[in-house]
Amino acid sequence: MRRVYLDHNATTPLRVEAREAMIAAMDVCGNPSSVHAEGRAAKALVEKARAQVATAFGADGADVVFTSGSTEGAALTLSGRGLHGSSLEHDAVRAWIYEDLPVSSAGQVTVADPASSTLQLANSETGIVQELPRGLAVTDATQAFGKLPIAFNWMGVQMAMISAHKLGGPKGIGAVVMPRGTDLQAQIKGGGQEMGRRSGTENVLGMVGFGAAAQAAARELADGVWERVAELRNILEKALEAGASKTIFVGYGQKRLPNTLCFATPGWKGETQVMQMDLAGFAISAGSACSSGKVKASSVLTAMGYDEATASSAIRVSLGPETSEEDVLRFADAWLQKEKKHHARAA
Amino acid sequence: MRRVYLDHNATTPLRVEAREAMIAAMDVCGNPSSVHAEGRAAKALVEKARAQVATAFGADGADVVFTSGSTEGAALTLSGRGLHGSSLEHDAVRAWIYEDLPVSSAGQVTVADPASSTLQLANSETGIVQELPRGLAVTDATQAFGKLPIAFNWMGVQMAMISAHKLGGPKGIGAVVMPRGTDLQAQIKGGGQEMGRRSGTENVLGMVGFGAAAQAAARELADGVWERVAELRNILEKALEAGASKTIFVGYGQKRLPNTLCFATPGWKGETQVMQMDLAGFAISAGSACSSGKVKASSVLTAMGYDEATASSAIRVSLGPETSEEDVLRFADAWLQKEKKHHARAA
Repeated sequence: MRRVYLDHNATTPLRVEAREAMIAAMDVCGNPSSVHAEGRAAKALVEKARAQVATAFGADGADVVFTSGSTEGAALTLSGRGLHGSSLEHDAVRAWIYEDLPVSSAGQVTVADPASSTLQLANSETGIVQELPRGLAVTDATQAFGKLPIAFNWMGVQMAMISAHKLGGPKGIGAVVMPRGTDLQAQIKGGGQEMGRRSGTENVLGMVGFGAAAQAAARELADGVWERVAELRNILEKALEAGASKTIFVGYGQKRLPNTLCFATPGWKGETQVMQMDLAGFAISAGSACSSGKVKASSVLTAMGYDEATASSAIRVSLGPETSEEDVLRFADAWLQKEKKHHARAA
Repeated sequence: MRRVYLDHNATTPLRVEAREAMIAAMDVCGNPSSVHAEGRAAKALVEKARAQVATAFGADGADVVFTSGSTEGAALTLSGRGLHGSSLEHDAVRAWIYEDLPVSSAGQVTVADPASSTLQLANSETGIVQELPRGLAVTDATQAFGKLPIAFNWMGVQMAMISAHKLGGPKGIGAVVMPRGTDLQAQIKGGGQEMGRRSGTENVLGMVGFGAAAQAAARELADGVWERVAELRNILEKALEAGASKTIFVGYGQKRLPNTLCFATPGWKGETQVMQMDLAGFAISAGSACSSGKVKASSVLTAMGYDEATASSAIRVSLGPETSEEDVLRFADAWLQKEKKHHARAA
C-alpha cells in the first residue's frame, strides 16, 4: 500500500528543483574562498543561492547569513542576549530565553517590549500564526517561510531565522536574515566566511538546494497552491469533526498555517496514535520532531491552558503541496476507525 | 585546454561514491527524529554514515558527533577552554587558544602540557605532520584524515575534529570524535540531537556523503593510492628544484602529507603566482583558502622563522588521487616558464 506522508512540518520531501540544482552543483569542486576559476565558480553558486533565498523571503538587499539550520540560527541570534519569549517557541529558542511572555487560550502571545523579545511567526505544532510587533528583536520564521507570503523588508523585525528543509530544501542548511549591516557577533569563528558572521567552508550543495527550493516555494505560493492545501486541511478537519465527538481541534477558527491540523482526543496518547497510524501507512507526529523517543505532553498545548491529559493526546497532521484529496480522506477513514476501536476498548 | 586541479587541501572533488549515495538518499524524506517509517529510514542513513566515519577514522565504538565542519568543531571543542596551541593552527583553532606553543624551524611544535593543549595532526599549508603527545586535549585532524592512516582509538587523544570535504565528501559536514561518553558541552542547543551534544535537524545528505567518502578514502589509503601520489609530489618537487635555483622548498625532508608541496620564491608574491597559474589552467593556492581576498604573509611560514618576503611568496600545490604524472609535469613546465619570466623582469 502506498504510504501517505502527512508530516511536512517535521520535514519535507526534497523538491525536484532542489534535487536537480544540487546534482548539477556536484560537478563544481572549488572552495568558494579560493581565488582561482574553480573557487570562483563555487562562490557564484553560493551568491546565486543567497539571492534566491533573499528574494523568496522578501528580503532583497538584506543580509542573508547561511547557517546549518534554525537551531544554529537560534543560538546565533539569541544566546547571551537574555531576550523574552513564550513557551510556544521551539526548544532551540527556549534554550536561550526568559520564558515569561503570556500566552492566551487561543495561542496568541502578548509582547511587552518588542526590542527585547523573540516571537515565532507560526507554531510548528498548531500552525497558529502570530501578529509580529514592529521592532521585534528576533522571529523564528522557520515554519512559516514557504507556507505564508512573507516580506521581511516590511516586517520591521531585526532578525529572522529560516530553514531549507521545511520548504522542500535539504536538511542541515538555513539562514539568519537581517537588515544590511546589522551587528551580529559570530559564534563560529575562523576563516571569516559569511562576512565574518559565520566562518567555515560553505555547505555549497545545501545552499544551492535551499536557493532552488525557496525560489520554487515562492512561485508555488504565488500560484495559489497553498490555498488548495488549506481546502484539503479543512476537508480533513470537517471529516474528523463529524466522526469524532470527543476530539478537540486546537486553533480552530484561528489564523493558522494552511497545512496544519492539530487535534487532541483526551485519554488516547498521541504517541500511540502516531504508531497506529504509522502501521496503517500514514506518517504524522505528536508534537514537534526533535530528539527521538521523547514522550511528554506538548508544552505548546499546556501553555495554551490545556490539561496534561489533553496535551499528551494531541497529534499533528501537516499537509504538503503534493497531498491529494484522496490522501486526506483515506487518513480520515483510517483514523476514525482507530478512534472508534479506542473508545470501544476504553468503554 | 583541460584545467588541472592541484588545490586538494582547500577542497576536493566529490567522490563518485559520495555522489551516488547522496543522490540515492534524496528519496528518503523523513526527519531522523520522527518515529514513523519515514523517520526511521532517515535515522538509519545517519547511523550508517556515523559507523562509516568511525571505522574509516579508526574510531569504532568512539562517539562521532556530526558538526557542520571543522570550524564548528573547533568552536565546539575549544571555545571557553583556554587551551594552548601554536601559530601553525588553522584560523578556526587560533580563534580560541593561547597561541604560545613554540614552533621549530622544521615546523615541529613542542607541547608542554598535552591535557591543556591542542595540536594539528598535519598542516594544511606545508603538509608537515606532528607527533601527537598522548593525553592531548584536542587535535585538528582535518587535513590528515583520508591522506594518512589514522587509528583514533590508539592515539590517546581526547578529541579530534574532521571534515568531509577534505577527503572527497561534501562541504558543510564534519565531526568531532571522542572516546565514548566524553563530557562535551553543547553550543547549539534545542532538540537534543547527537546525544544532546549538537542539536538541530541532521544534515542527512551531508552525513551520507561523508560516510561514503570516508569509506572510499580508507579503502584507497589501504590500496596504496597515496604512495603513488607521494611519488608524483616528489617528481614535481625534483622538477621544480632542478629548474628554479632561488626557490625554497618548505618542509623538505620532513614527514609531510603525501600530496602537499609548499615552496617560496622570495620577491614573487604568492598571490601573483596563483593568478598567473590560474590563467595558465592550474588551480593552486597561496596559504589556506579561507575568507577570499586575504593577501597577507602566511602565519605558518613566519612561525617557522621565514621572513615576510619569503612567507608572502609561498604557494601550495596539493595533489589528489586523480592527479596524473602528466598533470604535475605540465604544471612544472608552466610554472618554470613563469618563474623565468619573473626573474628576467626583476633583473
